[in-house]
Amino acid sequence: MKIENKFPTKDISDEDIKTKFPLVAKKNASHKSKFVIANVEFGGDLIPVFAGPNMVESEKLILDCAKNVKSSGAHFLRGGAFKPLTFPYRSEKYTETKEEGIKWLLKAKKEVGIPIITEVMEEKYLELVSEVTDIIQIGSRNMQNFPFLTACAKTQKPIMLKRHYGSSLRDWLGAAEYLLVEGNQKVILCERGVSVPHTHRATSRFLLDLQVVPAAQEITHLPIVVDPSHATFWRPWVAPMALASIAAGSDGIMLEVHPDPKNSAVDPLQPIDFKEFNVLVKKMDNIAKSIGKRHVLK
Amino acid sequence: MKIENKFPTKDISDEDIKTKFPLVAKKNASHKSKFVIANVEFGGDLIPVFAGPNMVESEKLILDCAKNVKSSGAHFLRGGAFKPLTFPYRSEKYTETKEEGIKWLLKAKKEVGIPIITEVMEEKYLELVSEVTDIIQIGSRNMQNFPFLTACAKTQKPIMLKRHYGSSLRDWLGAAEYLLVEGNQKVILCERGVSVPHTHRATSRFLLDLQVVPAAQEITHLPIVVDPSHATFWRPWVAPMALASIAAGSDGIMLEVHPDPKNSAVDPLQPIDFKEFNVLVKKMDNIAKSIGKRHVLK
Amino acid sequence: MKIENKFPTKDISDEDIKTKFPLVAKKNASHKSKFVIANVEFGGDLIPVFAGPNMVESEKLILDCAKNVKSSGAHFLRGGAFKPLTFPYRSEKYTETKEEGIKWLLKAKKEVGIPIITEVMEEKYLELVSEVTDIIQIGSRNMQNFPFLTACAKTQKPIMLKRHYGSSLRDWLGAAEYLLVEGNQKVILCERGVSVPHTHRATSRFLLDLQVVPAAQEITHLPIVVDPSHATFWRPWVAPMALASIAAGSDGIMLEVHPDPKNSAVDPLQPIDFKEFNVLVKKMDNIAKSIGKRHVLK
Amino acid sequence: MKIENKFPTKDISDEDIKTKFPLVAKKNASHKSKFVIANVEFGGDLIPVFAGPNMVESEKLILDCAKNVKSSGAHFLRGGAFKPLTFPYRSEKYTETKEEGIKWLLKAKKEVGIPIITEVMEEKYLELVSEVTDIIQIGSRNMQNFPFLTACAKTQKPIMLKRHYGSSLRDWLGAAEYLLVEGNQKVILCERGVSVPHTHRATSRFLLDLQVVPAAQEITHLPIVVDPSHATFWRPWVAPMALASIAAGSDGIMLEVHPDPKNSAVDPLQPIDFKEFNVLVKKMDNIAKSIGKRHVLK
Repeated sequence: MKIENKFPTKDISDEDIKTKFPLVAKKNASHKSKFVIANVEFGGDLIPVFAGPNMVESEKLILDCAKNVKSSGAHFLRGGAFKPLTFPYRSEKYTETKEEGIKWLLKAKKEVGIPIITEVMEEKYLELVSEVTDIIQIGSRNMQNFPFLTACAKTQKPIMLKRHYGSSLRDWLGAAEYLLVEGNQKVILCERGVSVPHTHRATSRFLLDLQVVPAAQEITHLPIVVDPSHATFWRPWVAPMALASIAAGSDGIMLEVHPDPKNSAVDPLQPIDFKEFNVLVKKMDNIAKSIGKRHVLK
Repeated sequence: MKIENKFPTKDISDEDIKTKFPLVAKKNASHKSKFVIANVEFGGDLIPVFAGPNMVESEKLILDCAKNVKSSGAHFLRGGAFKPLTFPYRSEKYTETKEEGIKWLLKAKKEVGIPIITEVMEEKYLELVSEVTDIIQIGSRNMQNFPFLTACAKTQKPIMLKRHYGSSLRDWLGAAEYLLVEGNQKVILCERGVSVPHTHRATSRFLLDLQVVPAAQEITHLPIVVDPSHATFWRPWVAPMALASIAAGSDGIMLEVHPDPKNSAVDPLQPIDFKEFNVLVKKMDNIAKSIGKRHVLK
Repeated sequence: MKIENKFPTKDISDEDIKTKFPLVAKKNASHKSKFVIANVEFGGDLIPVFAGPNMVESEKLILDCAKNVKSSGAHFLRGGAFKPLTFPYRSEKYTETKEEGIKWLLKAKKEVGIPIITEVMEEKYLELVSEVTDIIQIGSRNMQNFPFLTACAKTQKPIMLKRHYGSSLRDWLGAAEYLLVEGNQKVILCERGVSVPHTHRATSRFLLDLQVVPAAQEITHLPIVVDPSHATFWRPWVAPMALASIAAGSDGIMLEVHPDPKNSAVDPLQPIDFKEFNVLVKKMDNIAKSIGKRHVLK
Repeated sequence: MKIENKFPTKDISDEDIKTKFPLVAKKNASHKSKFVIANVEFGGDLIPVFAGPNMVESEKLILDCAKNVKSSGAHFLRGGAFKPLTFPYRSEKYTETKEEGIKWLLKAKKEVGIPIITEVMEEKYLELVSEVTDIIQIGSRNMQNFPFLTACAKTQKPIMLKRHYGSSLRDWLGAAEYLLVEGNQKVILCERGVSVPHTHRATSRFLLDLQVVPAAQEITHLPIVVDPSHATFWRPWVAPMALASIAAGSDGIMLEVHPDPKNSAVDPLQPIDFKEFNVLVKKMDNIAKSIGKRHVLK
């Protein structure tokens, strides 16, 4: 019997590189994008660090975080004024600070002198957020919200595109192509964990996929950042996974840092505190330097 | 050693029913929503059938489909004037017909007398689509696009919410709660396959999850429809999976039907033709009647 | 850039059919194995039913089950005298009855006149079990225990090979080839659920994969049986999934039946009782007859 | 409505630690097993390296490998004289060398002075293999072959237990308990990739799960080794994943090394050559030393 070789492949083929994501794909084996955002170089020897709280809870919190993460070596302050929630009800603590949060981020940026990365979820807030942020973060759940991708790309602001936890590398690169096709050159990919059947604890949420770092770098010239906080969801695993990300060749690291993790407004099991962050940055730098010319600190 | 029971559970608990999706959850074991859309009852003894092409390719095609699926017993005509694509480049065939396609759907509705279900992907088209469609379809990739869910719900049009292929039942019910919290009562869930590591063919795409039919019905009063066409992606498997869906207790069936499947503008391996649809509807009806008082045909 | 199309495919190819599992593969599209075991035909119009308790707990229990499932229409009595456990410690209730259990199965077979299917886990018990059983059951966890597969096949007894919950169809057919290559013609495949990331309840265990029924039947001539009890792990979902299995075209059904499910020695949430079994068999028969010439009862 | 909290959890609980795998579980947070095999300490500051070809193809090959990997710093020579295959047909190249291969391993051990780790698949070869090997390797597909686990444990030889690619941490620790319950203290766990729905290339096989390193170390005192060769299945990804394993805190590394990878008898895409191994060992050592007092080389 002859079977029909019927299914279009999910694998990445030479055909894909030519017709599906020609802008995202490398032109040759050594092709790697280098670009500068707020005086920080991506895609080169530096491995930039994004750090800060999950949510911009208050002015005090974000200023405090900005100072602390900067002094430990972070290159960007992260923090959400907008936050997607699986369920439509928010506890008091969990309230999005929206326009006010954006103001506080701006204040932190000016007073502390650290550039910003923050998430937008709706086209109507794109303009507001673009005024303060140095990098627009597109969250996992919006990875295939194609009209929104196009709207973000058209701002011509740098963009970090998080991978959906149920997405293949091929789909992820396809989503990135929606950004590049608008002429936007400063696009960063971010791995943050995939859902798998074989969880460590049944109720653990995601598995950090570090294999995607060399896999993506084989196909695309875009820098790839790793976020071990959202993947592990558990403070004690953040440091080993951050160190492993550097060793695997990640082009950047995103970390959730909070002055008082247990009282974080969201996901209190996952942030590390200032002291842990300070130690971790040094170790990440050590690893980078121990295996080549890359570095986290100067 | 004592370990910390740290992770919030992904399981559905009594607490979830009270605080995460109280409107979506059943009030008691026999609670089941019944409502009428365009004279078709959902949640009762009838198992409505949605049928039609993947895309509204042309006026002729959609009129042809409308007549044929109606005469075989379909209750709704399906067909997309808008179509999300994994990559930003479209072949000529694959072009969205947008406003024009919506007009053709309206013509089919009026001339043939069959209600419509069609997908919207952007808030800006909501008004246009609402004027013709009887049910708004929210696609898998938008399942957790929360601001869009809210905008759709506010139209107060009936909505069908497709499950993301990487989503748990808990997350899906959370997304549905975003619709009900706006006062929208006519919400239908639609299972269309999940991604799994153990595919039948490596390049097959999804696995139809029929177990979610009784699992969802145990927790929610909302009707649950099954779409075996997108899950199987392969014509020969559509009929057995459609029959299995009826036997599993599905409250409705969505099927891709095309007069000339091999020349379908999108996914040509998956539609069944008019004749196959005609035979299948009768078999689905036979199964429903053989095990109780439900029916597909009158 | 040209990428290397390097990975050997996991998909099933024409090459596989010729070189990997030529005996398991169909010779032509209509090729289907038919064989008789203990006067019951497999692969034809009859859909045989295997029913009984998880474990052969006592002589009384197994005799009771044998009579009851036979009178409701079951073709084979199932029940384990040997039982793999994830952890090495057994509660008193959970003790394997081994040689004694095999004797009780033999007594049930003779007194009630119903053929037997039971699991073996070790070569050293193969001879003992072969004397009483009509079909040797190879459990999921042994699916790729290749030397054991060969030993079972060499007994020339009929064999039912359960799919590992982490196995692709390709690997499963490869394991079946180990049986056929020894000249054993009476081989039955059994689907019993796969592990997936998107469970209905985080702590639910497996997802019944009904899509594998038409997928396997497309490639192999061997009959394929479905076991919804182990997949769903939850009594209320067993009946809908059993009915769905028949509708999907399954060539047989395996069900866990216990006179007092709550007091079953193992997995007490999953067996149905005698009355539920009696009703279910009739409904399965109705479905089979409603869509063609297949039947469960005479 | 109140739902039943019915399912036994798959998560690891305090109850599990007491009743399911009390011997495998840590007694307190700092509990870590230390033991010596062939003068190499496990569970301490040294991170032992196992290296060698997939199969013991010939006397020349294994002697060549033994000398080379030893001179680069490997602590153990790996290589299979027995090899499970998914399909029952072997190419000429792919033949198991069995008894002869075991003799060649013994020769390499004596002449080169490097201890051995090799896989056994059947009880009948246990005695033969035990005479030469320093560590018995139990392969992924045998992880839940419980009678075989018991037989291996009873030899009182050190054992390395590979994780099944579809196994949770809980099931893996349960399998390890089968070894410890026989009084065998020298048990090593080995992570080698899990199957996931979101593969990088559809036909890539496994995803290396590095998160399981801290997850396992949180619960068990047993050392955990990582095998990036089988997980990645692709030479260019082996080095980044090996470095990441060290950074994540792995207690050992297993690597496939072959003098002429393209002509390896099995899986020719995955071994690294002698030169790559030599460079990699130094980098692994650098990483270990850069973040603490652990080391790969002296």
